[in-house]
Amino acid sequence: MRERVRQLVESSRFQWAIIVVIVVNAAILGLEVSPGWMEHYDSETAVAGWVTVGIFVVEISLRVYAYGARFFRGGWNLFDFFVVAIALIPGAGSYSVLRVLRVLRVLRLLSTVRSMRRVVAAMVATVPGMASIAALLGMLIYIGSVVATQLFGDTDPEHFGSLSRSLQSMFQVTSGDDWANVIRTTTDEHPGAYVFFLVYIVLSTYIVLNLFIAVAVEALETEQEEELGELKEEVEVAMDAQTEAILVSIADLKTQVSALEARLSP
Amino acid sequence: MRERVRQLVESSRFQWAIIVVIVVNAAILGLEVSPGWMEHYDSETAVAGWVTVGIFVVEISLRVYAYGARFFRGGWNLFDFFVVAIALIPGAGSYSVLRVLRVLRVLRLLSTVRSMRRVVAAMVATVPGMASIAALLGMLIYIGSVVATQLFGDTDPEHFGSLSRSLQSMFQVTSGDDWANVIRTTTDEHPGAYVFFLVYIVLSTYIVLNLFIAVAVEALETEQEEELGELKEEVEVAMDAQTEAILVSIADLKTQVSALEARLSP
Amino acid sequence: MRERVRQLVESSRFQWAIIVVIVVNAAILGLEVSPGWMEHYDSETAVAGWVTVGIFVVEISLRVYAYGARFFRGGWNLFDFFVVAIALIPGAGSYSVLRVLRVLRVLRLLSTVRSMRRVVAAMVATVPGMASIAALLGMLIYIGSVVATQLFGDTDPEHFGSLSRSLQSMFQVTSGDDWANVIRTTTDEHPGAYVFFLVYIVLSTYIVLNLFIAVAVEALETEQEEELGELKEEVEVAMDAQTEAILVSIADLKTQVSALEARLSP
Amino acid sequence: MRERVRQLVESSRFQWAIIVVIVVNAAILGLEVSPGWMEHYDSETAVAGWVTVGIFVVEISLRVYAYGARFFRGGWNLFDFFVVAIALIPGAGSYSVLRVLRVLRVLRLLSTVRSMRRVVAAMVATVPGMASIAALLGMLIYIGSVVATQLFGDTDPEHFGSLSRSLQSMFQVTSGDDWANVIRTTTDEHPGAYVFFLVYIVLSTYIVLNLFIAVAVEALETEQEEELGELKEEVEVAMDAQTEAILVSIADLKTQVSALEARLSP
Repeated sequence: MRERVRQLVESSRFQWAIIVVIVVNAAILGLEVSPGWMEHYDSETAVAGWVTVGIFVVEISLRVYAYGARFFRGGWNLFDFFVVAIALIPGAGSYSVLRVLRVLRVLRLLSTVRSMRRVVAAMVATVPGMASIAALLGMLIYIGSVVATQLFGDTDPEHFGSLSRSLQSMFQVTSGDDWANVIRTTTDEHPGAYVFFLVYIVLSTYIVLNLFIAVAVEALETEQEEELGELKEEVEVAMDAQTEAILVSIADLKTQVSALEARLSP
Repeated sequence: MRERVRQLVESSRFQWAIIVVIVVNAAILGLEVSPGWMEHYDSETAVAGWVTVGIFVVEISLRVYAYGARFFRGGWNLFDFFVVAIALIPGAGSYSVLRVLRVLRVLRLLSTVRSMRRVVAAMVATVPGMASIAALLGMLIYIGSVVATQLFGDTDPEHFGSLSRSLQSMFQVTSGDDWANVIRTTTDEHPGAYVFFLVYIVLSTYIVLNLFIAVAVEALETEQEEELGELKEEVEVAMDAQTEAILVSIADLKTQVSALEARLSP
Repeated sequence: MRERVRQLVESSRFQWAIIVVIVVNAAILGLEVSPGWMEHYDSETAVAGWVTVGIFVVEISLRVYAYGARFFRGGWNLFDFFVVAIALIPGAGSYSVLRVLRVLRVLRLLSTVRSMRRVVAAMVATVPGMASIAALLGMLIYIGSVVATQLFGDTDPEHFGSLSRSLQSMFQVTSGDDWANVIRTTTDEHPGAYVFFLVYIVLSTYIVLNLFIAVAVEALETEQEEELGELKEEVEVAMDAQTEAILVSIADLKTQVSALEARLSP
Repeated sequence: MRERVRQLVESSRFQWAIIVVIVVNAAILGLEVSPGWMEHYDSETAVAGWVTVGIFVVEISLRVYAYGARFFRGGWNLFDFFVVAIALIPGAGSYSVLRVLRVLRVLRLLSTVRSMRRVVAAMVATVPGMASIAALLGMLIYIGSVVATQLFGDTDPEHFGSLSRSLQSMFQVTSGDDWANVIRTTTDEHPGAYVFFLVYIVLSTYIVLNLFIAVAVEALETEQEEELGELKEEVEVAMDAQTEAILVSIADLKTQVSALEARLSP
């Protein structure tokens, strides 16, 4: 029985059905925040929402039954379980934080569609390689914000009046969005401040560039290792074939010498 | 006769002439939406437009005659046929959707200029490799929009009042254009919202970066495979030459041994 | 005498001196457009300007004398000659187009500093590889502008009222600068227009990305070819050494067999 | 004794403790510019600040004692020394330039955390490779500013009224931030100016792109050299093994021939 449930749960038809339910559920979440729609179809949407949750509960139950305790050892399984369980907490349907968490159900696409799981895994794997550069960027933003608050807090309190405002302003400057307006008041008052912001922009752009390149290099490395590995194998196969030809030729010669030897033997 | 028409149609002079007509046609389309020009040269422009369409009709007819049924099997041929056929639908000259479709005739440059056809083919070929990451980005924008509508719809109805507005706002934030202004009203009211948008910006930037890198890696892969293939061939040629030298030397030795053998024979 | 002038002209001291004069000349051009400075030092700046021009004239004369007719065959030489000659046209000092052209003298840095010449040459060399993609981008902007003028010219005449305005607006959207504001009026009136602009933004971003990647791939190709060339050489040297070892060993064997043969000879 | 202090100073526990103090110190610097916090905890923050400075002084003293004169030969050591020494200058606690320099203490993270030191070293190492392209960009901005001031200084004095304003405006256009608004007044007056700015934007984007690619190529080069080095080694090891097999086979043959020779000897 368990074996059959497992086969069902692992069949691609079952998984496609679940993907469809996830997408339907995502659409329902979208409709629920569309005032025009909810005015007319409030109860229908709620029913459809509960039906999809019901299907999820049945699906997770089947998977728990099929795999037993092993189910709870897979990270993605736990994620599915947790995300569906939220829907069953009383009061989760009313306006509350839990209501917001329901949107995580859309993320079940990541756990269910295989190619997405792979993409996410690849992206997460490159994060450690960026840690040092990201920390460097964080440090620059922090130092820039402390200095900007000290020097320009009185000149432009709207942008640099407190550390949290400066952090927001400097992050905005780092992102390149409307930076000229952020620093306008300050540079109009203190023309020298332009040098500070210029240095900051050049440094932060350079660090962000290095962050991006680090990700690109890691992606290229993986791809390149594969290709070089293939090249190595092909060259070695060719080398093997040629060495083989040489060894055969030498073996031939040995046979000839042996024959000569035999003839000389009395 | 057919053979001669085919030779004409495939001659580079004919193709250059068609390219010129396409460019002239593009210029006419531009003049038609320039009020100053149309005031004075309305009828002349219309005549010039009909002449270019006439040339296109003749060209397509020649190509259909030259290739027969085979003509309709090529994708680009069908595109050319369809784009020119639109011009012949009655009423296509008046203000209507068909009028807008006439602009597609400019795209005939893609089907006619060979280097452009290759560039477009290469670009289309990289699309599947981006599908998973693009879907991930779509998912993030959708989830972000649903959450933003739920949490900030009342605070800033202009940007997050309905799902479609949130989708537009979140797409704008993703593109990095003026994002600080989009979220200003919300973050002024709820300072904690800054964390939500910060996480969203970092995630979306990271996914977009991975999307771009995926395209770059694919382009580099193609180029690299070629170079490594060349390297492999060159190394193998060198290896062949050296193995040959060794085998010749061994064959030499064999001759020597054979001579020795012959002398020993009685 | 000519030989001596040539040695002088090619000495690194002479070239450094000219670089200094170019930089001084650039600074003078900057001072000339600083109202505060010109109020007080108008005549001094003019004198300094003429002195630098005088030095340039002497320098070019020396180079013409040193190389003779050959001087006029180098592209950079002609550029230097032309740029300095402009200064000698009567009336070039007054407010005129020629006054603007004087700024080209700063570009003499490109012709004089060797590393810059190389960088510029490398950049120019990658241009042909981008031509098709750049043409594709131009076509997209043109088509987008014609369609936008046809469809939205009446709704938002400020941005899409004529072809030239649409071209400017679509180029701005392509560059990603403030695109949400450019399309606001239009999308508020026709919500469906958002789809048109969304498709346009995605397509143009994708083409620009491919343009950038084409430049990057070309730069990497050059660098990679060098490294693979080195690798090939090193592997071949190693292969040569090993083949040599094998051939020596076989030659050894041949000597042995020859000795055997000699002994058997009567 | 000295040896023991050195062991202490080099122990990872000691270094982690210092990292914690640096982070605490950074937090204190942030709190000092938060008006809300300073109102209530002014003196406590000052005390905490002096405690961290005290710890730094002790740490540096221990390191100076441990390494003696050698301490002052390391660049990062001098940096640490200088940054801590600033805190001891009388009056450094009051509002002054020295107060701003205290923020440099956060940079001690760079000198203390090893992975950061490496990242910074790698970034600094790529700077020379960019020098020529960066100079080219600087030249373009300068030339563009001089020309813009000459031509558009009277039309739009706010953006192009003096060289310094033009430099700021052109740098903003180069960064792509809000460029359409910067040039609006000018292009409304002189439509032809659009061509000037279009050429400027295309050129500056192209140079910035080449600057970014130069950094990326350098990063990839380092990584690629390593991989190709590995590949070379592996191929050579395989070649060695095969040559060895061939040589053994030949040696075998030699033994056989020697045996033959021995038998023939009387």
